[in-house]
Amino acid sequence: MPAGKLHLVPLGGLGEFGMNCMAVRWGEDIIVIDAGLMFPESELLGVDIVVPDITYLVQHREKVRGIVLTHGHEDHIGGLPWILSELNVPVFGTEFTLALVENKLDEHELLEDADLREIRAGTRFTLGPFTIHPIQVTHSLVDCVALAIHTPLGVVIHTGDFKVDPTPTDNRLFDLHTFAEYGKDGDVLALLQDSTNAERRGYTPSERAVRGRFDEIFARAERRLFISCFSSSIHRVKLTMDLAREYRRKVALVGRSISEAADIALDLGYFDVPEGMLIHPGQIKDFPPQQVCVLISGTQGEPMSALSRAAVDNHKHAKIERGDTVVLSSRIIPGNEKGIYRMIDHLFRREADVIYEDGSMPPVHVSGHASQEELKLIMNLVKPRYFIPIHGEYRQLRIHADLARGMHGAVGQVLMMESGDVLEFDELGARKVEKVPVGRICIDSGSRGEVVEDLVIKDRRHLSEDGFVLPIIAINKLTGTVESIPEIVMRGFAAGSENGFLHEARRLITATLENSTAEEKADYGVIKEKVRADLKRFIAKTTSRRPLIMPVILEI
Amino acid sequence: MPAGKLHLVPLGGLGEFGMNCMAVRWGEDIIVIDAGLMFPESELLGVDIVVPDITYLVQHREKVRGIVLTHGHEDHIGGLPWILSELNVPVFGTEFTLALVENKLDEHELLEDADLREIRAGTRFTLGPFTIHPIQVTHSLVDCVALAIHTPLGVVIHTGDFKVDPTPTDNRLFDLHTFAEYGKDGDVLALLQDSTNAERRGYTPSERAVRGRFDEIFARAERRLFISCFSSSIHRVKLTMDLAREYRRKVALVGRSISEAADIALDLGYFDVPEGMLIHPGQIKDFPPQQVCVLISGTQGEPMSALSRAAVDNHKHAKIERGDTVVLSSRIIPGNEKGIYRMIDHLFRREADVIYEDGSMPPVHVSGHASQEELKLIMNLVKPRYFIPIHGEYRQLRIHADLARGMHGAVGQVLMMESGDVLEFDELGARKVEKVPVGRICIDSGSRGEVVEDLVIKDRRHLSEDGFVLPIIAINKLTGTVESIPEIVMRGFAAGSENGFLHEARRLITATLENSTAEEKADYGVIKEKVRADLKRFIAKTTSRRPLIMPVILEI
Repeated sequence: MPAGKLHLVPLGGLGEFGMNCMAVRWGEDIIVIDAGLMFPESELLGVDIVVPDITYLVQHREKVRGIVLTHGHEDHIGGLPWILSELNVPVFGTEFTLALVENKLDEHELLEDADLREIRAGTRFTLGPFTIHPIQVTHSLVDCVALAIHTPLGVVIHTGDFKVDPTPTDNRLFDLHTFAEYGKDGDVLALLQDSTNAERRGYTPSERAVRGRFDEIFARAERRLFISCFSSSIHRVKLTMDLAREYRRKVALVGRSISEAADIALDLGYFDVPEGMLIHPGQIKDFPPQQVCVLISGTQGEPMSALSRAAVDNHKHAKIERGDTVVLSSRIIPGNEKGIYRMIDHLFRREADVIYEDGSMPPVHVSGHASQEELKLIMNLVKPRYFIPIHGEYRQLRIHADLARGMHGAVGQVLMMESGDVLEFDELGARKVEKVPVGRICIDSGSRGEVVEDLVIKDRRHLSEDGFVLPIIAINKLTGTVESIPEIVMRGFAAGSENGFLHEARRLITATLENSTAEEKADYGVIKEKVRADLKRFIAKTTSRRPLIMPVILEI
Repeated sequence: MPAGKLHLVPLGGLGEFGMNCMAVRWGEDIIVIDAGLMFPESELLGVDIVVPDITYLVQHREKVRGIVLTHGHEDHIGGLPWILSELNVPVFGTEFTLALVENKLDEHELLEDADLREIRAGTRFTLGPFTIHPIQVTHSLVDCVALAIHTPLGVVIHTGDFKVDPTPTDNRLFDLHTFAEYGKDGDVLALLQDSTNAERRGYTPSERAVRGRFDEIFARAERRLFISCFSSSIHRVKLTMDLAREYRRKVALVGRSISEAADIALDLGYFDVPEGMLIHPGQIKDFPPQQVCVLISGTQGEPMSALSRAAVDNHKHAKIERGDTVVLSSRIIPGNEKGIYRMIDHLFRREADVIYEDGSMPPVHVSGHASQEELKLIMNLVKPRYFIPIHGEYRQLRIHADLARGMHGAVGQVLMMESGDVLEFDELGARKVEKVPVGRICIDSGSRGEVVEDLVIKDRRHLSEDGFVLPIIAINKLTGTVESIPEIVMRGFAAGSENGFLHEARRLITATLENSTAEEKADYGVIKEKVRADLKRFIAKTTSRRPLIMPVILEI
């Protein structure tokens, strides 16, 4: 075995949901697996997306040979514009993945300078000291791969996101044979496996399981049929197209994200559409309701999405009427429940027949991630010396690790890592050696994708809870005297009797100023702090709130 | 049948989750069923609780004969302090319900003036023209009743919250016989039934189903055992006490809400505790870990709850260590997922064995509300002429109504109502006749329970998204001239290059002022609006954000 050290450095996605990104380093060469984003938690007020801190990559920028993508979901490719604008390296992905990446980079005006290189499942390629073997896997998206990374110390298999779907809708099977061969040869150093569904027992149903329910829905719908799924769910879009053809319905695509994804899939031949079946949203009204099917964006109740607007009768083309059928073919993502159920309530008020995931069978949605039996199957096939759970919150990694610890004979040793840990392999074994800087970079897409600093978010949270109170004091620059009664501006703050409060607060500030020496008055910093402290005490006592208090001194 | 009109007026809880409150009126007499609160959605920033608008009751204050409570959950009694301080009428409830009410009123210093009257299941009482017959039902809480309200037009049965638990832990059975007798006599005018679980097929498991899992957990726990449930889950508290006795563990109660509820239940004889079994939280450290069980508040990941603090090792007495077991015996309430899973992740990081609702059997939590088969059973027993679904969001009411429409022979007519609708019955039938004012009153408990106006919440939301920008202009009162360069204060707003932005914004305001006539300058309203409009346009163009802009004019 050659002397040298292999480092695995997860920069995101281990111990948190989303923004998957992992660096693999051998000496002077680094490759990066995936470059995802995370949708922010509601506490990150006014933040639109979150991407990983890539300080580690920037510090070693001359070593980075490229970014290899496993598939095209946002939590694997969404951070690319941000990373490429810091570090323009080649990006490797399958045909479909790169088509999604192209759209994204085009939006950010980064496409022209990007170096995108297509890879194919089964065809190896080399990047520095690494030979990378993409292996076809099944998932809720199409054209997804796992990566077998040949390093000087052995093969590292990164599963990407997957489930073991024995009957994928595109008939491109999970390549079990290649996993089996790596295991048989006994040269797998480490298996890095998707933990998203590690809590679920049994098997995840095939994408094809949804067909039974969709068929039933198409057969029974007497008027317009609205179907909403994640825009990247090409399997569901294809299924809808197939059934629309069978049941002789025209299909309209409503919402930008779903139209774009469908266009790409159509271009790449993932499905066919007979001449005249696709109609423009403006034509929906021209066909009898029982001849129309609408594929519509917005399964998560996002306020500005097409479906949310249609639910409150505020969409130009998508009108939902009594007796129409609306299908939400997607997971309810934790954190979105309130918005989704509010939308469903509105759909019921429109007297639509609403079909959503409620545990009934056949399912209207299935997960794209492997459950415990599938996870164990892959461990059995691959027989890694080291097993490292990836892609999951801490409890999912932990449950996955515990599962692997029970796999005697199939798994050598189980290691737990979180984002920022550096796992070092050499001829003697493996160990965590250090921490690199990681974290969440908040992007405010309204401000042209600018980074929002922590302080701004903190202020926003503070403001959102208690509002603000601004005492404004005009001081004569020459004489140092206070020129008027202090003005007080406040918003987002309920002070009971407002006039009484303002009167009292003004009196208090005047008293604070009067009790200050001339020297204090000349030092605006001191004056501001005294006013702030007195006012804070007064407000806490009278209202129990703690608004943001920011004294302003105006020099006249 | 006597001439007259019966009105059912839901003031909360129909078409929304929580704050259940229903007025029943016959001529000059009104009774109120329940007086609940609602926990606010996260959009209601800085609001702690939400209670129903009771304008209707206040307008008819001389007619209100009393408030009758079905049980002691917050969504049925939590609005009492607010309503009683507007309208001090007698409150009727069972022994256990009143014990919870007493605690609550005492906190708000309203207990002394309150007129609380105990009722018992099976014992009728009269309020104006109504004879009320409380009927024992089973639920996740103890001492719960449905109400058969005898009116001049027939009997109205209000189920309260219930499930049909054939094996309640306190052996106080669901009184099916009384429901059956009302149905047999054929005099039920209307059935108002709990819709919370109308979406669920089948039967809700008995409270006793949890015992199997708890038993297994007690048998296997090798160190400290932490159990968290809703503080009002007296069944679970009793179960824990029973098993702690069996497995020879001391029990400490940690967290105010759970100690209070357990004290009440103990006082009222819902369970016994052998001498010396209960210990003070401070004594936890004095016993070997395998001899301690801690009942702890905070199943929903509330940041300040005892369990959340223990999860980050920040609780004085409740230390969670490697190998301890933590049980979350409760539902994950929609909207709380992020906080709950964050807490679970922290518990895993402490290397505790965490047991939560993950679909495995036997269940660690069961619902307290009837599923579809139970709902149908009650309809079959009661045979109402009119059926009205209550307690649920719109889709739940709708699904419940559809279920009832299929009950041929058992249900006469199904009517859908939402909060604020007035349903009128007379000898000719039933119809919706008008709307009364209803709505959500937001209470900010920090500010001593004061009402927060809509505008304040709107401001807080706006501030939370984009922060604020305050241009401050000093104008000489006498001459009308601007006395200094405009000052600009901003927070929660990221403007890219801050200095560049401030410089540009100041120049813009100065230009706006210079381009204003003397008359405009004398009218501060006009000046403010001009500055606001120009600044808004400038900020939107340069940053795509829309902070709250509030020009301030300071007269010197």
